[in-house]
Amino acid sequence: MTNVEKLWTHVEAVRTKKPLVHNITNLVVMNTNANALLALGAAPAMIHAPEEVGEFVGFADALVINVGTVYSDMAAGMRLAVARANEIGKPWVLDPVAAGVVSYRKALCLDLIKQKPAVLRGNASEILALSGGSARGRGVDSADPAEAATQAAIDLARTTGAIVAVTGEVDTATDGERVVRVAGGDVMLTLVTGMGCSLSAAVGAFVGAVSDRLEATTAALALWAVAAEVAMPRSTGPGTFQGAFLDALRNLDRATFLERAKVS
Amino acid sequence: MTNVEKLWTHVEAVRTKKPLVHNITNLVVMNTNANALLALGAAPAMIHAPEEVGEFVGFADALVINVGTVYSDMAAGMRLAVARANEIGKPWVLDPVAAGVVSYRKALCLDLIKQKPAVLRGNASEILALSGGSARGRGVDSADPAEAATQAAIDLARTTGAIVAVTGEVDTATDGERVVRVAGGDVMLTLVTGMGCSLSAAVGAFVGAVSDRLEATTAALALWAVAAEVAMPRSTGPGTFQGAFLDALRNLDRATFLERAKVS
Amino acid sequence: MTNVEKLWTHVEAVRTKKPLVHNITNLVVMNTNANALLALGAAPAMIHAPEEVGEFVGFADALVINVGTVYSDMAAGMRLAVARANEIGKPWVLDPVAAGVVSYRKALCLDLIKQKPAVLRGNASEILALSGGSARGRGVDSADPAEAATQAAIDLARTTGAIVAVTGEVDTATDGERVVRVAGGDVMLTLVTGMGCSLSAAVGAFVGAVSDRLEATTAALALWAVAAEVAMPRSTGPGTFQGAFLDALRNLDRATFLERAKVS
Repeated sequence: MTNVEKLWTHVEAVRTKKPLVHNITNLVVMNTNANALLALGAAPAMIHAPEEVGEFVGFADALVINVGTVYSDMAAGMRLAVARANEIGKPWVLDPVAAGVVSYRKALCLDLIKQKPAVLRGNASEILALSGGSARGRGVDSADPAEAATQAAIDLARTTGAIVAVTGEVDTATDGERVVRVAGGDVMLTLVTGMGCSLSAAVGAFVGAVSDRLEATTAALALWAVAAEVAMPRSTGPGTFQGAFLDALRNLDRATFLERAKVS
Repeated sequence: MTNVEKLWTHVEAVRTKKPLVHNITNLVVMNTNANALLALGAAPAMIHAPEEVGEFVGFADALVINVGTVYSDMAAGMRLAVARANEIGKPWVLDPVAAGVVSYRKALCLDLIKQKPAVLRGNASEILALSGGSARGRGVDSADPAEAATQAAIDLARTTGAIVAVTGEVDTATDGERVVRVAGGDVMLTLVTGMGCSLSAAVGAFVGAVSDRLEATTAALALWAVAAEVAMPRSTGPGTFQGAFLDALRNLDRATFLERAKVS
Repeated sequence: MTNVEKLWTHVEAVRTKKPLVHNITNLVVMNTNANALLALGAAPAMIHAPEEVGEFVGFADALVINVGTVYSDMAAGMRLAVARANEIGKPWVLDPVAAGVVSYRKALCLDLIKQKPAVLRGNASEILALSGGSARGRGVDSADPAEAATQAAIDLARTTGAIVAVTGEVDTATDGERVVRVAGGDVMLTLVTGMGCSLSAAVGAFVGAVSDRLEATTAALALWAVAAEVAMPRSTGPGTFQGAFLDALRNLDRATFLERAKVS
């Protein structure tokens, strides 16, 4: 079995196992992420109240934390959920949205990455900021090429024990030893809000269904790139791309994935 | 006039009266529910701050409470709004999202159903949980066939005085005496987040415009099923289904409704 | 250069400069507004926590405040962000959603408009309410023709120093001296939630990129009307209109804008 064939079996594992993904995510993308998880074959739940997260993470196959619109009560829910996930051995994913530019959430993320995330997914600015490098992001955009953040990702993977994924024109994923590159996709992914956040949610689904976390993360990256390529000729701009992308996630078949996925 | 012809007059009543529906709903579906209400011909408002709900419910024709992402301040707003709705005689609808699995919201829902909701709409797990039965749901999905919850729904309708609707492959609505079944629809409704929540919002619009609450609820259930069937051939997956469904809600005509609605 | 040709240069300025727009906006439209800003060529950020807003507004080119689902913590964030924006000279826009009907947010808006907004955009009921006139709105709809609010807009522009825009069948924008009218658009804009809120966000992008604030506001109004007209024949109802509208924002060319924009 080639590497890409193996990644496809992970896509099928998500569709078959339908992992329940508990998201504590930002208010902009809650709907988008839920729909992406459903299209993927996973079961989403968006639950953030401190009164509920500890109980709910017990039902979930994975937890995804996204700090995009974090506020104090939501941060409290994140801390409780992460602590409980670790207690009971559930994998959890961190998306440190804009941690390169805002101090409050950077401090929260630096604290959270000490709690052994399974995967950390961000853009180059975010990964550089968390690894101690200097970031030049503004908002959710990245001002650093993903390439430049590779060393930061390797360092961060080693210190945290997490798989670190840096997305950009070419995506990188590393466990601190191996470095995988995923090419392809389309710039349209940056013209629709929440596509990166949804990818982080998808990584949650993959680590909830697949035991090898580097492969799980790589499969999600490759799926995102291929689905974007399939959606492009079926859309006429960022509005119709949204629907076409979800359709592609749902309908994608093995042959198309094997033909298009660019992993090295 | 046949039963289905009568239900169509209720769809027309919503389009003509344009009821103002006050929603205190979950953060995942606020946008979806607002757009569903607009497509239906109703006027949506999403207002949940404790400082505002009491005043606003006075303007509304109906109130819809959805506990999908409830937290303490939102729960406070729900309690205030329900108390005020009862004081001034406005009908209110409860959607007990995932009350079968999370204790905090289950307790809240058990408390709220004592406050005489006009309609309670949930899946089988949620209705079983609130009636004291054992639920096997995980997240917003239901692990119990709607059929199995029929007795629970009848019991709950008798104890609360509400119309209880259980949605699933076939939907059931009951006032504790009569039991109505609505068939049709499409499994795609479960692959897009918020379609059930939007149905609850739509029930709010119908009870805000139509006095017979069992008929109002049945009309909403039938409309959802028919609109899904119309949207299916106009879409290629869960992404494009969303737009096609809203278009169908807006454009549906009497002939199509009479031909397709399956109510018994 | 004609007036409309000049407005087109402002659309191009947004596409070229990609202003970063900091939004503290309502939970219903966060996603919609972010996507509208991206389609326009701007960079959106949705950040509302009191711990973060003061720092973030320093990075932004403009701030947009929308009170649609305001609650006490979000109001605190709004006050902090506005104070900081004024300190450092960043323009800010206010969308007083439903301020005509709910006392809590009306009081907040009356307080905020003393803090020198660059632009105030609302419907006739909202503008009448803030100018001291009597409003007959219900929810986010307006029960007053935009025309009737023109005098209120002029008064409000004079007392606040803001550009005041009143949207309706024909839109009006005024600096208290000059009065501009923008016609066109489509009633479909009222059948999709958040189109007015997204327009306010777009006004933020324009005042972040263009120094003449009346022209910046007028360009946003004209762009909205033209994009709606382009989207109509590419959609079959309010669901597909959403995607078509974003596509139109992204793809609109000079010739179409010059041909269709109706400004006097």
